[in-house]
This record gives sequence, structure tokens and C-alpha cells, in this order.
Amino acid sequence: MAPPSHAHINNGNGVHHNGAVPVETETVEPPPTQGSRLLDAEEFRRQGHQVADFIADYYASMGDYLVRPSVTPGFLRRQLPAEAPSRPEPGAFAAALRDVRDLVLPGMTHWQSPRHFAHFPASSSTAGVLGEALAAGINAVPFTWAASPAATELEMVVVDWLGKALHLPESLLFCGGGGGTLLGTSCEAILCALVAARERKLAEIGGRRIGDLVVYCSDQTHFALRKAARIAGIHRDSCRGVATYRDDMFALSPAELHAAMQADVDAGLVPLFLCATIGTTQTTAVDPIRELCAVAAKHGVWVHVDAAYAGSALVCPEFRHVVDGAEAVDSFSMNAHKWLLANNDCCALWVRKPSLLTAALGTEQEYILKDAAAEGHDVVDYKDWSVTLTRRFRALKLWLVLRCYGVEGLRDHIRAHIRMAASFENMVRDDARFEVVAPRQFALVCFRLRSPEKFCGEKAANELNRRLLEEVNATSSGPYMSSAKVGGVYMLRCAIGSTLTEERHIREAWKVVQDRAASLLRKMEIMYSVLV
Amino acid sequence: MAPPSHAHINNGNGVHHNGAVPVETETVEPPPTQGSRLLDAEEFRRQGHQVADFIADYYASMGDYLVRPSVTPGFLRRQLPAEAPSRPEPGAFAAALRDVRDLVLPGMTHWQSPRHFAHFPASSSTAGVLGEALAAGINAVPFTWAASPAATELEMVVVDWLGKALHLPESLLFCGGGGGTLLGTSCEAILCALVAARERKLAEIGGRRIGDLVVYCSDQTHFALRKAARIAGIHRDSCRGVATYRDDMFALSPAELHAAMQADVDAGLVPLFLCATIGTTQTTAVDPIRELCAVAAKHGVWVHVDAAYAGSALVCPEFRHVVDGAEAVDSFSMNAHKWLLANNDCCALWVRKPSLLTAALGTEQEYILKDAAAEGHDVVDYKDWSVTLTRRFRALKLWLVLRCYGVEGLRDHIRAHIRMAASFENMVRDDARFEVVAPRQFALVCFRLRSPEKFCGEKAANELNRRLLEEVNATSSGPYMSSAKVGGVYMLRCAIGSTLTEERHIREAWKVVQDRAASLLRKMEIMYSVLV
Repeated sequence: MAPPSHAHINNGNGVHHNGAVPVETETVEPPPTQGSRLLDAEEFRRQGHQVADFIADYYASMGDYLVRPSVTPGFLRRQLPAEAPSRPEPGAFAAALRDVRDLVLPGMTHWQSPRHFAHFPASSSTAGVLGEALAAGINAVPFTWAASPAATELEMVVVDWLGKALHLPESLLFCGGGGGTLLGTSCEAILCALVAARERKLAEIGGRRIGDLVVYCSDQTHFALRKAARIAGIHRDSCRGVATYRDDMFALSPAELHAAMQADVDAGLVPLFLCATIGTTQTTAVDPIRELCAVAAKHGVWVHVDAAYAGSALVCPEFRHVVDGAEAVDSFSMNAHKWLLANNDCCALWVRKPSLLTAALGTEQEYILKDAAAEGHDVVDYKDWSVTLTRRFRALKLWLVLRCYGVEGLRDHIRAHIRMAASFENMVRDDARFEVVAPRQFALVCFRLRSPEKFCGEKAANELNRRLLEEVNATSSGPYMSSAKVGGVYMLRCAIGSTLTEERHIREAWKVVQDRAASLLRKMEIMYSVLV
Repeated sequence: MAPPSHAHINNGNGVHHNGAVPVETETVEPPPTQGSRLLDAEEFRRQGHQVADFIADYYASMGDYLVRPSVTPGFLRRQLPAEAPSRPEPGAFAAALRDVRDLVLPGMTHWQSPRHFAHFPASSSTAGVLGEALAAGINAVPFTWAASPAATELEMVVVDWLGKALHLPESLLFCGGGGGTLLGTSCEAILCALVAARERKLAEIGGRRIGDLVVYCSDQTHFALRKAARIAGIHRDSCRGVATYRDDMFALSPAELHAAMQADVDAGLVPLFLCATIGTTQTTAVDPIRELCAVAAKHGVWVHVDAAYAGSALVCPEFRHVVDGAEAVDSFSMNAHKWLLANNDCCALWVRKPSLLTAALGTEQEYILKDAAAEGHDVVDYKDWSVTLTRRFRALKLWLVLRCYGVEGLRDHIRAHIRMAASFENMVRDDARFEVVAPRQFALVCFRLRSPEKFCGEKAANELNRRLLEEVNATSSGPYMSSAKVGGVYMLRCAIGSTLTEERHIREAWKVVQDRAASLLRKMEIMYSVLV
């Protein structure tokens, strides 16, 4: 194989660089040697300052980047050597930073762009980024209390802080006999809850009846639930996605859930787990927690609430009603990395009975993991609360975010996005060519272009909107949005939540949508007139 | 509830601070407001520099910290308010950094201490920390190619770079038809492989036979396997931990594995999955891959190799023989965050047939996740390779580590620790009061104090060594080690792998062990003379 040629990467090779992150080019550090040189305090300081400047410059020039790069599959792989370097080139760190600027950033989708409206936000903040940096610097592995006492206790403190800020019932918090932990993602949270529920149920009905267990959700529930169910060994046919309707704003109906559970019981199956959602992925629908818990209780079903996106909005008392009845849920999770400034990844999971979680996920007799501190003392060993044993010190960044912005600061942040979303929604409503497809509940607007009557049919309308989205996203310095398809209806999703987004970005985004729609309708008129 | 009083935390309150991280105390930033102020480039730059200095100072003063803090459960929770602040105090960021210095760091177990010899290392490097910081700053969510093309492609490139550097067979790499991904931990890697194996097997034998599946490992295999098996719905009684023996250096015997599998087949059960280990947690035993694969092949069993710790050593050609026969394995994982400078967390998982992984873990029909780029093009959507959908941009730090240190630099790093471990092992052997319990294979030394004949009995010897470890770990400015118990024998574990560890720390650690042993033996002599 040919030797790698890292020093000769062609930075101009087909990648359009329209950002403006400067990189110190003349710094040539001496080659690192073994041992402490790999973590030399003074070199760390120097390169750490370079990275702080690099990120600050990236934020300052964020508006200049295309939100989604115009690259094709393989663009980066083709430019990089096939093997790692044997010895670092001179000034490797500075060269690598240049490559991040010239090769990596122009090929990224910029989630921090103020014009990123796709999927859900991944909100960044100074405290969030620097909390991650601090945790990486400390680089502890808080898998047991003894393995990092302060990290474990800070996690216990911040999950209670966060739970109170979100108006969760105390029964889910340490201060009320429950407790929480910080995981990576909602997928993990749902999986942990589901495995705890499964172990409890199998203990009741017999360990060999896993094939009889049934999991419930709505047809709007995130794929994370099906993925978790599949991983947990629930049969693929035993996941009921109860149908929802536009008239109910796509919420899960307690009556339909009841009917589904009863049908399974009548068939000799065993209802196990319900995943209710506050803020579904496609349209941010809110399932009625209290009523669903009442149905679930009849069958001893574990209720998990997935508030991955909308959980952040619960800092605002005006949204408190969506967790009415949550005293009865068994577990609750939300992603503080989505809309609460805590940077990817940071998923909080709370459970009403931590002992059920640790019974399912805890070690049985690992000798070396035992510690005097854990024997007979009131300590939490978080390794028994999750899929993983090794874990990161995520509590530090969440604590920094809560300390530096305060609960009122987080409310300001959420409300600003909700105001912007309301303003975008109004612009849609004010234009008769468009319709808002699902009522806005938080900061996501689901809308579409009405298909002119003569091009009638749902399929044509969907195709029209698909083309509209493509054209909007292809507009240079335009917004980046995504789509949903609910009840056969294709719609555009404008999810407002990037930290850097301001009112003007909303107005500009809407202007692009209008312009592209006008051009598209014009083209269709021409085609129509030719054909008819 | 009383309002929180963040500005009045008593920093001197019972926490012993023996580090020397200075914090700028006079900087009072203006209170953050909503919107772009939360990610203001100039504020980020200023606070980013503070954090770079904070971490650099922490490394510079690392030697001053007690490796394991002398704190009791609740020490930190008692000092923090019960609720998050409503509004941030003035200068909240600087105040928080002071609290990290005065409250958090003194309560941490310092994994980066040159005297941290417990568990396995969590090696940090400048490139690793700053790679994490950069990824946190960019804060992308590379769940599909389109969601961050450069992040996905860099991950594909670095897993091939790493696999080649570790002398893995090409069949596991993208360049050979396989492929890899970066997950958080080995627990996730094993779980993903196990679910892929389970789905393949159930497709053959019928989806309702999950209760018949059996998983194999040795009695030395990490609990991660049992945890993964339990999560995946394998019955608790269906995990065979084949017994190992000191004469075989605690390696899994192919003959015993064969017997176990045959017995299960005879009982109508279905062998599913073997987890072989390169470098077990307790004594770094190495299972014979080629021979085990031959046994597994007879029953269509998926073979996963867990090289969480010792995988890093494979950068050195002198260890290449431990992966002899790995062409036949189905999957392989190792933690680059353990001993390869890539900071927590960074677990690489390679599979021979990625389609089996994506068939088990992939989305079925999520509309909004589909993207033109993924239709008909040769792209990888990493959301289908793992437990989670949301993921971090881990490739950046691993790429920085490989770029900045080079494969030869990583070899120097590994060999330095192996030399230090050999030197520690020699010191143990040179002292007739001690014995090396399991032959050293990498950089872990398992040793114990021989119990003088008159205090005979295994139980007394174990108790003696348990007390020895307690006293060693309680020595101020002493080393921090952990223990193992294998075949009824309790031993001390000295795992050398902290980036900052130098020869002198090894000599000092051994001196502490000798001193504590001498004192302990003296006390026992006195007690004995009183009793007899």
C-alpha cells in the first residue's frame, strides 16, 4: 500500500469553502513524544486557546456557511489517505485544524446555523460547549460513586434541579423517592425503561413468556420505541401503533388504547409497556398522560413518557398542563441537548422506582466493582441505571447551563423560539396559497402549499410540496427544513430552536419559501397551459 | 421551599482542597440574555480561554491531588442548593468555575492522575480533549449521511485507519467489505452485535424461539456480556460462563466450549453467540480466537471479540498474534478511550457483514429520516448501526489523535506503559514476600502478598491482601489500585496506563505497597505473639 501523504492533502480539491474561520498557520509545535508530552500542560494551554478561537470564529462566521453542504457521497473519503500517518507531520495539530476548516466544516450540515430548521434543534450554548470541554479535560469515568464521588453526586443534584424546573412530579425525583440519571439519548432511556418493565412483568408471569409481551404506542411515536422493543427481544408483531387522527391533533386516544389492550388480553397476550409522547417527531402532538395512565393501570402496564423534544418547553409554567397526571407514570425522559442548550448528548431519564431499573440492569456479583462505599451506604452507582457501564461526566455541562442561564433564562430562550414560530405560523396563515397542516403547539410549524384545484389529488399535492422543499433547501444562503408525512399528507417542517436564530432569519426563510412556491406554481401553470 | 442561594455556597465547607487550579476571580460577565447572547462568539472566546487555562492548570497540578478523595456519601449534595437558580448570579460563569475548582475537583477520583492504577486507564491526551471540545463546538448530529456528510465520512475513514493500525483483518474494514462505527462503550458494541446475531438466528429457526437461544463466554468475561444478553431478552439461565483455570492463564478453553455447546444442542437449545475476550478485566487473559472460531462455526454461532482494554496494544506488531484467526470473527470491538488516548467515550465496533447489523437495528419506514442521498447511493446512515439514533461526532477526536501522534507515536505510548508494568512486575518478583498471581500480558500486574505459613488458609490470605489494598489506597499521595478475585484468590491490580504516569510513579507506588505490607505483617506478628 502507498504511504499516506497527510502533508499533501489538496485542500482546494472540489470542496467549496465559504466560511471564514482563520487558523494560525505558522505555529509548528515540536513533535509529541511519549508519556507526559501527550498531556503537557503548556502545550495543552496553547492548543486549547487555538481551539477556543477556532470555535468562536466558527460561530462568528456561521451565517456564511451553506446550512447543508452541496457535496456528494464519497467527497471526503476520496480526499483522505487510506491509512493513518506513521509519524505525525511537523505541526500536525495546526495542520489538522486547517483541515477541519477546509475539508470538514465545508462538508458538514451546520446544526448551529440560524437557518437550520430541519429535524429538531440541537441547541448549543457557551456553557454547554465549555461544560463538555471541562468534562473531557477531567475525563473521569463515574460508573460508581467511588469511581468519581463528585460526578455522581452532581448528577443526582442536577437531575433533581432539572426535574423541578420542568415541573415534574416529585415522585420521579430523588427528593421524592424516585430518581434520575443522564444518558446519551432517548433511545437508551426508552430501552432502559422497557427492560425494567419487562423484567418486572416476567417475574410475575414467568420468565419464559417473553413472546407474549406487547408494547403500545401511537402511529406517531418515534421509531426509537420500535428500535428499543426490537433490541429488548419483544416480537416484531407485538408492537401496537394505535392509529391517530387529524381531528385529535394526532394524539393517542385512550379509548383506542383500551380497545387494543383488551383485544390482546382476550388473545392471551400480556400488555407490558406504553410509550406516550409529549411532542411527537412529526407534528409535536401531545398524548393525554392522565387518561392514558388510567387505561394502562388496569393492565399493570408500565407507562413511559418520551418528551425528547418538548420536554424542554416544560420549563415554562404555561406548558405545565401537558404533564398533568404524570404522578402516575413509571418513567419520563427528555433530551436537554435538543432545545435546552445542553449540547449533544444529554438525555435525562427519571424513574419512580429506581430499584426496578437497577434490578434489571445491575451487576450481580462483579467483585471488582464492589466498593466499601457502596456497601450499606446511601450511594447511587449509575452503572446500574443504564445500558452502559462506562459513562461520561454529563452532569457538569447541565449544571453549568442551569447555573449560567438560570431557569428564567431558559424560559426566555424557549419563549423567544415560540414567539418566532408563532410569527412564522402567522405568515403562513396570511398567505392563502398555504395552509398550516397541524396546529402549532411548541416551536414547530407544519405547513404546505395548497395544490391549485386543477392539479387536484393528494398525490399531486404531495409531489408539489416535495419539490417545494427540495427547491427551498437548494437555495443558496436559504433555510434548511425537513418534511413529515402524516395520514398520507406530505408537509414541510420548520422547527425553530437554533440558539443563533433571530426574527430576521424567520422572515428571510419565509421569503425563500414564498419565492420558491411562486416559481414552482408558475412553472406548473406553464406546463398545464401547454398540456391542456 | 427556600430560594436557592448559589452566591453563598460555602466553598471551605469541609472539603479539603489540595489542588492548585487558579481561577480568574474578578471577571464579571454581563448577565446572559436570550437568543444569540447564549452563543456569542466573543463571550465564547473569552470563556473558552478561561476553560483552556483551567484544564491546563489542572494537568499541571495533577500530582498534588489525592487520587481518590477522602469524602463520604452526600458530601456534595449537602453543599448544593435544592433548586437551580432562577436567574444567574452576577459573574455566574466565573463563579461556576470556582465551584468546579473548590467543590467538584476535590471530590473527584482523578483518573488522569499519574498514580491512578485502578480498574483500567481512561487515557486522556491533548488531541483527545480538544477533539471533544471541537466536536462539542460544532455540535452536529450525524445520524444520517445527509445530517452531516463530513462527520459520517470521517468516521468511515478513521475506523478503517484504526482497524489497519490494530492489524485487524480487512474483512472487518470498509476497504474489505465489512465496516466499523464509533459507539460509546463496549456494552453497546456487544449489545449491537448480539441483537444482529439474534435476529439472524431467529430468521432461521423461527421468531418465537428466543427462549431457546444460548450465549457463551468464560467465567472471566466482563459483566457487559451478561448485561447485553439480559437487555436482548436472552433468558438469565441461558448464559454459559465456561470455567477457566490458572494453568491456562484463565483463557477460555475451546474443548470446554465445544462440550458446553454440544450439551445445549443435545438439550434442544440453540447456540447463538460467543463473546471471546482479548484482555479480560480481572487479569487480561487472552482467549484463543482461531480455535474458538472453529468451534463456533460448527454451530453457526456469531463470534464477537471484546478487546475493550487490550485492543489498544494491537497497534504494536509484537501483539499481532493475539488476533490470529480473526478473519473468522463476525464482530470486534475495543475502547479507544481506555488506552489509546481518545478520551471517554470512544468504542470502535467493526462487523464483517454490516447488512446484518442494519437489518437488526435499522429503521423500517421512518419517512422523515429518508433522504435522496440515501436512496440508491453508497452512503452509510450510522443511526442503523447502533442502539441510538442521535449520536455524537466522535470521529473528530479519534482522527485528531491519529493525526497528531501517528501510529508510531501510539506504539511508543503503549510500549512505555508496558515497560513500566514489566518493571513493576520485576519489583514484585524480587520481593519474596509477594507473588505475581497471573502472568502479566500487557500493562496490568496482578499480585499479592503471600500469607506467612503460620497464618495459613486462603481466607486469611485474602483478608490480608484486602487490608493491604485498603491501606495502600488510604496512603496520602499514594497510588490508587483496585482488586480482583479469580478462582477464589484475592489479588491487587496495578493497571498502568495513565498518560501522565512515569517510571518514578511506579517506583513510588511499589515503595508504598512494600511499606504498608511491612507494617501490616508487623501488626500481625504482634497479634500472633499475643494469641499464641
